[in-house]
Formats: sequence, C-alpha cells, structure tokens
Amino acid sequence: MTFSYNQLFTFTEAVFRSIGCPEDDATLATETLLAADLRGIDSHGVARLVGYVRLWEAGRINPTPRVGVTYETPSTAVVDGDGGLGLVVGPKAMRVAIEKARLVGTGWVSVKNSNHFGIAGYHAMLALAHDMIGVAMTNASPLVAPTHSLDRLLGTNPIAVAVPAGEQPDFVADLATTTAANGKLEIAQRKQLPVPEGWVQNADGSPSTDANAVKNGGALLPLGGATGSHKGYALGAVVDIFSAVLSGANYGPWVPPFVAFLQPPTDPVGQGLGHFFGAMRVDAFRPADEFKAHMDNWITTFRNAHAMEGKKILIPGDPEREMAAVRLLGGIPLLDAVIKDLESVGQKFGVKLQ
Amino acid sequence: MTFSYNQLFTFTEAVFRSIGCPEDDATLATETLLAADLRGIDSHGVARLVGYVRLWEAGRINPTPRVGVTYETPSTAVVDGDGGLGLVVGPKAMRVAIEKARLVGTGWVSVKNSNHFGIAGYHAMLALAHDMIGVAMTNASPLVAPTHSLDRLLGTNPIAVAVPAGEQPDFVADLATTTAANGKLEIAQRKQLPVPEGWVQNADGSPSTDANAVKNGGALLPLGGATGSHKGYALGAVVDIFSAVLSGANYGPWVPPFVAFLQPPTDPVGQGLGHFFGAMRVDAFRPADEFKAHMDNWITTFRNAHAMEGKKILIPGDPEREMAAVRLLGGIPLLDAVIKDLESVGQKFGVKLQ
Repeated sequence: MTFSYNQLFTFTEAVFRSIGCPEDDATLATETLLAADLRGIDSHGVARLVGYVRLWEAGRINPTPRVGVTYETPSTAVVDGDGGLGLVVGPKAMRVAIEKARLVGTGWVSVKNSNHFGIAGYHAMLALAHDMIGVAMTNASPLVAPTHSLDRLLGTNPIAVAVPAGEQPDFVADLATTTAANGKLEIAQRKQLPVPEGWVQNADGSPSTDANAVKNGGALLPLGGATGSHKGYALGAVVDIFSAVLSGANYGPWVPPFVAFLQPPTDPVGQGLGHFFGAMRVDAFRPADEFKAHMDNWITTFRNAHAMEGKKILIPGDPEREMAAVRLLGGIPLLDAVIKDLESVGQKFGVKLQ
Repeated sequence: MTFSYNQLFTFTEAVFRSIGCPEDDATLATETLLAADLRGIDSHGVARLVGYVRLWEAGRINPTPRVGVTYETPSTAVVDGDGGLGLVVGPKAMRVAIEKARLVGTGWVSVKNSNHFGIAGYHAMLALAHDMIGVAMTNASPLVAPTHSLDRLLGTNPIAVAVPAGEQPDFVADLATTTAANGKLEIAQRKQLPVPEGWVQNADGSPSTDANAVKNGGALLPLGGATGSHKGYALGAVVDIFSAVLSGANYGPWVPPFVAFLQPPTDPVGQGLGHFFGAMRVDAFRPADEFKAHMDNWITTFRNAHAMEGKKILIPGDPEREMAAVRLLGGIPLLDAVIKDLESVGQKFGVKLQ
C-alpha cells in the first residue's frame, strides 16, 4: 500500500506532538525521519517511528530537550542533545556547524547525549543550500565485530558527505561502514534467504551466510568483508571516536541500543549516543562558481565514462535522488507490517493514518 | 639484504640533494619517504626513490619549489606545491593546518600542484605531537574503476586519520579506498600468484583473479569488492574532490601518472595532483586529558575484547608501529631488485649505498 508524503508527514508530525515534542521540533523530526522514506532508505524512515515511541515510553527520550553548545572554539563546538530525538538534535547541531563555517570557513560539531538521527545523508545535505560541503556521521548500537573479534563493539557507523555542484545534481555519498546495512539483513530474514559471504559471522567467529546470524550472537562485518574488513573497522572506529570520544557520548560497546527492550549498559562512559557534523564553505578554498564548474565536469566525466554492458555509472546520490522524485509524485509504499505498527501507534494517541 | 635506517637516510638524503633539493627539503623528503619503509609499507618507501628521480629527469618535479598559501580563511587554506615533491609539500601544508588549528580549533588545507607524498599516515601523524587529530588524503594515478565502469577514473586515494591517546599508543588508521593497495598486486605479480576475487577486473569488466589484469587494461576495484564496491567508490570520490576539486589540482582521469614513461594528459583540468590535510585540536572539543583518558579506555576495550582463537584484535596503527620498532633496531630489508635500482641511482650521482 502506498501513502503520499503529505499523508505520512501529517501522521508522523501528530505522533511526535503526542509524545510531547513542541510544534517546531515535531515538524523538524518528521522532516528528518521522512527524508529516509523519500530517498528509499526504508529501514530508517517511518518504519522506525514505533521504535522512537517505545524509547520515549521507556523514558529514554526527552521530548523537550534544551539543545545547546557546551564547549566551543571559533571552528568547533560540542553540542549537548539533552537526551532529545537525534532527528531534532542533528539538524540543530548541523546549524551550529554551518554558522561557524560562515564565520571562519569551516565548522565541526561533535554531539553527545543524543539518540538515533535517521539517515546521515539528510544532515550532510543541509549544508548544500549554503554552498558548503556537509559531513555527517553517527555511532550506533553495537552490532559489528572488528576484525578478529567475537564481540560486537561498533555500530554500522555511517559516513555521509554532500558536495554542491552547479548545473548537475549534487554529489551525496552516504554509506554504512559495514559490508551491508542492518536493513538489508532484515529484508533477507523476512524473505528467509541466505546473505552473501562477507556480510556476517557466527557467534564463534566463523564465516556465515545465515541472515539470522546476528540475532543468534554473531555480528555484522566491517566494510571490506573477507579480505579487507580491517579497513571498514578503521573507518567505523574513526566515526565512533569523532562522534563520541570527542563529545563525551558513549562509545564502542557502551552505545545505548535503539530497541527499547534492551537496556542501556549500567556503566556508561558518556551520555547518550554521539554524532559528528562538519560544514566547509567551498569559497573558503576557491571561488564557488569555479568549484561548482569543476564539480559539474567531475560528475559528467564519471557519468559518461565507458560502462559495463547494460549498466550505468552512477554518481553517489543518484539512486536516492531519483527515488525521491518518484515517491514525491507517486507516493511511498509501506509494508503491511509497517502499516500495522503505525496504526497501533496512531490508536495509542488517537491519530489516524489517512 | 638489510640496511639500517641511518644508512638509507644518508643515501636518500644525498640523492635528493643531487637532484637539487635544498638541504632542509632533502632532509624532510627523506624523513617522509623512509617513514614508509620503517612502518612496513615497502611499496611506498625507498623502492620509489628511482621513480621520483625519473620524474625529475622528465622535468616533472621542481626541486626548489616555493610552497605557499594562495587562498585562505581562518580555518582553511589552499597551498600551491609549485610542482615540488609531495614528500616536501605534504609536511609543509600540514604545518599550515596545524597552525590554523592552534588559532581557531581546526585547520583544513587543500593542496594543488603537488606530486606523490609517500604514505598518508605519516602526514596525519604530524598532528599528534600537538595534541591534535590529524587527517591526510591524496588523489593518485587513475588505476581504479568506479562501480560498473570499464574506465579507470580514480587512484587508490588513501585516507589517514591519527588520534592521540594517553598511556596507550596513538590510533593511526591509514587505508587505500580500494580492496587492495597496488603494492599487494605487485607482490602477487612477482610471485606469479592469483589474487583474491574482488581485487581487480579485466578490461571487459569481468571479475578476475589475474594479478596482471590492471597491466592488461583492467582495473583495481574500490573497497567493498564484489558486493559493496559502490562504498569504496564513494569514499575514493570524496578523497578526489577534497584533494583536487577544492584546491584546483587535477582530478579523476586527469591525475598525472607517477611513472615517468607515461605522459600526463595534455588537457589538464588543474595543476599537478592534490592532497587534503586536516588538524583538529582535541581541546577544541573537551579538555585534552579527558579526551586522552577516554581514548585509552577505547583502545584497551577493543584490544581486550574476545578474539577468534589464535588471533588478536588490533588497533589501527598497531602493526606499523610494531614494525617500526623492529626495523629501527634490526634494520630494513630490501629486495634485490630495489637494491639494484638504488645502486644505479647512486652511480648516476656518485653516491654510495653503504
């Protein structure tokens, strides 16, 4: 079944209002969350609304956070999310980065005491309208085993980088530092299909193609899989350090789980989970027009190179942008299970999905 | 055969002096180049000295560059390498980043008109002594095919991030954004061994395990290999954009080849090749002692997690640091072919390797 963006927006905003978010925050959280559905990252959109509500019910989300800077220099800041929705804390922290970039060329903000922030790409893209390059990262619930580890010590820790172009659509890279995102695993579980080698390992560390391996004590594998997982591990580690060791959030195995039925560790090393944001004015390096003309040339050169038969060379961000155009017009398809979840959340608050 | 660090230093410094480098630059270039040999990245060390000399003979390296800032804001700069050795331009640009970080919290420097700069990790590590996080990237000769491409449009474009710790050794990630570095391919070629799937493709884009595939018109594959090369492609693209589109260097297929027998493209889109450097004061985010204590905790937590039988969980930088300790004491082993190359270079300038 398919819903229009506006239908989902009205519903989601009402739910966020119902858990106590002020109007502006409810709107902002909705915009952030639905960016995932629009761009085809279905695992990170309204499908997670029920998860956020359960975290709120468990007292683990503050609907009225006072998000603010607690430490700063001209080009850096630490933002305390005050236990709020990452969907709200993220864009507010990104604004701080953008404001600093306006003043001194770049701005870099590490965030503590936050929660899951939706898709990283959305936050990075907030810089584009200001002719800035945007960077966004976050740590996440520990599901990933570093190379040679049996323990799960890292999240899927995504990195997003958005770069403005001129005539061409913007460049938007957004990637988990694992071979596969957890959402892809969930799809294989639902369809009862095996997963490719290099995605997961069993609890004893042996290679696995079982989509349920992580559920059964195994782990997701860092980007690079069988022969290069040390690289994905290093990248995921950098995301963890920038997001949490710089800010004073929880890192590694201490990152609080997203699911409300798992308790956060009782010996936290910081506050909430952490993000890291950056904004760089392109005209802090060269005139913006010049930069954008070369980005256009970069993009068309890559797009027009010789491709394998029947294939296209994509620019990072192409599939998501094309999906957003389709879904804005034609609506957003939701799985029955997701609709059921949303309806039960709606019932709780007297909000109808219509 | 094994040589002491001092033997190689004296020899290499004399060679750089012979091609016309001023004394300080010759020392700096030698230190940068030999950091690779010390840390066990043999492909990027003295084995390449003959390559740099040949580039100089071809008139493609300026031994007396005036390296300087051409554009800046409080937290950013573009540095023009004036066609100098990347081994010299890199550390000088990193100094600019460090100085800006001292003043406004972070410094970000994009470099044009440079050349190959050795190992990225060395440059990132220059920040450590200042209690700063160091970042270093560079673009490189196009050998890598983006996902679905038959053309080689990117280099192995490495990313390095160095993070200071307290009692523990520093964290140093340094990774090519390809599944395998070109050096590993060369080793397989020499030993006439096949390479694992996901490292290379043939000229027609088909998967290959032939170590000679790149020589025969094929390409290296981005990090992620068969199921996730779009992620390595996106990361390599970010490195290319930060290093060259920001600075005004050549990008993508226009990056000049390292080998002197291949001519640079006749229609350059910029000057030389590009690097990108960053320095972030850790106390621009929280007190340095606090940060370092948490880094120590991060490191020991990961190091002491449950490992696979007979395996150790390594912290990024561990193998290279251990290798450097061994080689400083016990010397640096060189292959016969490398010694022969060095001797022929030495003969040219009347310098003995002894």
